[in-house]
Amino acid sequence: MRALLFDQHLQLTDRPIPDADSEVLVRVMLAGICNTDIEITRGYNEYRGVLGHEFVGIAESGVHVSKRVVGEINAVCGQCAMCASGNRTHCLKRTVLGIVNRDGAMAEFVALPHENLHIVSNSISDEQAVFVEPLAAALEILEGAHIKPTERVVVIGDGKLGQLCAQVLALTGCELTLVGRHDNKLALARKCGIGACDETDALSLKGADVVVDCTGSANGLALASQLVRARGRIILKSTFHGAQKVAMTPFVVNELTLIGSRCGPFDAALRLLERKLVDVESLISDVRPLSDGVGAFARAQERGVLKVLLDPSR
Amino acid sequence: MRALLFDQHLQLTDRPIPDADSEVLVRVMLAGICNTDIEITRGYNEYRGVLGHEFVGIAESGVHVSKRVVGEINAVCGQCAMCASGNRTHCLKRTVLGIVNRDGAMAEFVALPHENLHIVSNSISDEQAVFVEPLAAALEILEGAHIKPTERVVVIGDGKLGQLCAQVLALTGCELTLVGRHDNKLALARKCGIGACDETDALSLKGADVVVDCTGSANGLALASQLVRARGRIILKSTFHGAQKVAMTPFVVNELTLIGSRCGPFDAALRLLERKLVDVESLISDVRPLSDGVGAFARAQERGVLKVLLDPSR
Repeated sequence: MRALLFDQHLQLTDRPIPDADSEVLVRVMLAGICNTDIEITRGYNEYRGVLGHEFVGIAESGVHVSKRVVGEINAVCGQCAMCASGNRTHCLKRTVLGIVNRDGAMAEFVALPHENLHIVSNSISDEQAVFVEPLAAALEILEGAHIKPTERVVVIGDGKLGQLCAQVLALTGCELTLVGRHDNKLALARKCGIGACDETDALSLKGADVVVDCTGSANGLALASQLVRARGRIILKSTFHGAQKVAMTPFVVNELTLIGSRCGPFDAALRLLERKLVDVESLISDVRPLSDGVGAFARAQERGVLKVLLDPSR
Repeated sequence: MRALLFDQHLQLTDRPIPDADSEVLVRVMLAGICNTDIEITRGYNEYRGVLGHEFVGIAESGVHVSKRVVGEINAVCGQCAMCASGNRTHCLKRTVLGIVNRDGAMAEFVALPHENLHIVSNSISDEQAVFVEPLAAALEILEGAHIKPTERVVVIGDGKLGQLCAQVLALTGCELTLVGRHDNKLALARKCGIGACDETDALSLKGADVVVDCTGSANGLALASQLVRARGRIILKSTFHGAQKVAMTPFVVNELTLIGSRCGPFDAALRLLERKLVDVESLISDVRPLSDGVGAFARAQERGVLKVLLDPSR
């Protein structure tokens, strides 16, 4: 089968169809390019293998055969201390689709344990379903922190993840502003009834109760610690390659709380899509054939571009 | 009066007795040297003025006249958004004793608002009372975070603040280890029934539920993020001059929570001392006359030394 591999460099290659004896084989219909994929091509996590952890496909085996499915990306042991304590996404022996020791979904086929799969209802399109994984990650903010309807919240970063986080946070009723540097992306947020603010004016938002850093860059946290009020919370969503220089003293002096947030609940993300409470399709900038995977990665890094999807049937 | 001033450099100087028309004048009996004072002499916070925020003294005016008192260090407006929301230690207009725009207690006299003062009961000695401020700061850990009796907690840093934090955390019944690099300081913790571990063996403590960074150095946070379990909490206590290089990705991937913690409750600290639940006197390495203040600061920075007190009557 054709697959998009990262091994020193990004390449379209031929790979055997996954041996899915104890797992479910899924024919991939669409896969999404995430910033984490781009960071991997820059050295993040030292991953080598087929990329891709956002997908929708059709089960080729198992009890869900012929059904449309999406898949949770952490394949877990179910027995370690973290699994036993209900923290399965932090399994000490986990593999992670396209990120840690497990070939990803930018291929014609992908394999995952049965328990990772969720059936997609007919009311949800393929183009919507491929967003379930990042939408679940946005929902993890609300799983990990109580955001009150009366709080003032700022999301920094108007990219794919920032847009999804802002849409999810808007559902709480909180006073919400998205900070970014792209007119078209800020306009998209405004269309959803979310306040938008150019980064050059961000300091006007000082005193926020909660600031969510979705910048995927080293500067996001520094800006977040300027915007949040004393005893406020910063939620850190973005992962990237390398360390950053951070002044930690404001965290002590202002008694800030910093909350890291990663993978989230798929069931809840599917419910939001069924209820049409979020608009993910507006985030699609392009759909490219898998055969142009390398070009699609270049496209995904162009200024102003949001989600680029790959179609493995082409 | 004699006072220990920092203005480009540390110097014993002559200053007018504070004009305490609207505040209470206090004759200082003992003042403690804190790491924050030492950091100020290295440039932290760009403070210029009389140093010192840990003291016990005798009120010379006001309703507490002739009584022994200790004093909260944040002098607040009572009217700003932070004061109005119950976060008085974060008053937007605050001055801070010996730290922000307010002469400190390393002098014969100090002035503070009446509302900042707490009477010290006869059962508490001067040598104990001078620890109320840092003991309250240690208690702020428990004010800001729920530490369960069943959790495994690691305190990094065997200095003055680390010792006090460990003693306070020990009261929760939690499984507790103090990590340090000084045999005499680790022995002190063991004497209080607290586990002690040399820094070279710290990685054996991986998987802790809570890690408290009291190192006062740039390396503490990096070690803390190695020792804490996924979804665990890091509590940041120490302030120091400058920024540090931090890999933030583990905070996201492991969904860590970082909690900054500063000044704490004086009443509760006084209760712990009255109940003899903490041993602060063992932390005293030296008592020096104020006239040797510069020498006392040098002494406080010697290896193996814990608290150095200043006696303004000498």
